[in-house]
Amino acid sequence: MIVRIITVNVKPESVEAFEAETVKNHEGSLGEPGVLRFDVLRDTEQHDRFVLYEVYGDQAAVDAHKGTAHYERWKNAVADMMAGPRESAAYDVVAPADPGRW
Amino acid sequence: MIVRIITVNVKPESVEAFEAETVKNHEGSLGEPGVLRFDVLRDTEQHDRFVLYEVYGDQAAVDAHKGTAHYERWKNAVADMMAGPRESAAYDVVAPADPGRW
Repeated sequence: MIVRIITVNVKPESVEAFEAETVKNHEGSLGEPGVLRFDVLRDTEQHDRFVLYEVYGDQAAVDAHKGTAHYERWKNAVADMMAGPRESAAYDVVAPADPGRW
Repeated sequence: MIVRIITVNVKPESVEAFEAETVKNHEGSLGEPGVLRFDVLRDTEQHDRFVLYEVYGDQAAVDAHKGTAHYERWKNAVADMMAGPRESAAYDVVAPADPGRW
């Protein structure tokens, strides 16, 4: 299992549009067999800061996600909405160790 | 719903002990009625960096968590294992909007 946490700072005037595009990406991503979670979060204090919490079954699922039409659409749609490059980090799972609990 | 993302940098010699204590906290926390997720992650590249992904039903559940014996135990046990103060940020949920999907 691979978890990716993506942080995006959005231009204040683009927050609503970014949310709408990212919800579309969320919906498309949950239709992929290798995607276990695709949570979209907004910082409680800093309203133009978003986090995507993406959980994949394996590296092949990460690669497959990047080849989907909804990812390509999202990437292009939000390119000019971001206040800077997005940050991402990858994580191994410590718990829950049982894949059935994801 | 409230999501808290906690980042902890651990002293290299304390990584195994930190993992063991944090898995106990994970297990205790999932027994709380207001805790929806309590994922424990380890940075794939930086092995002494951990993330806790905590999802609560509401603020009362966050407060209740901080009053539990397993949280108190964890906080005390890991105090000397950390390489610096832990960082935390709170998030509102954009998606999935349906609480049944958490």
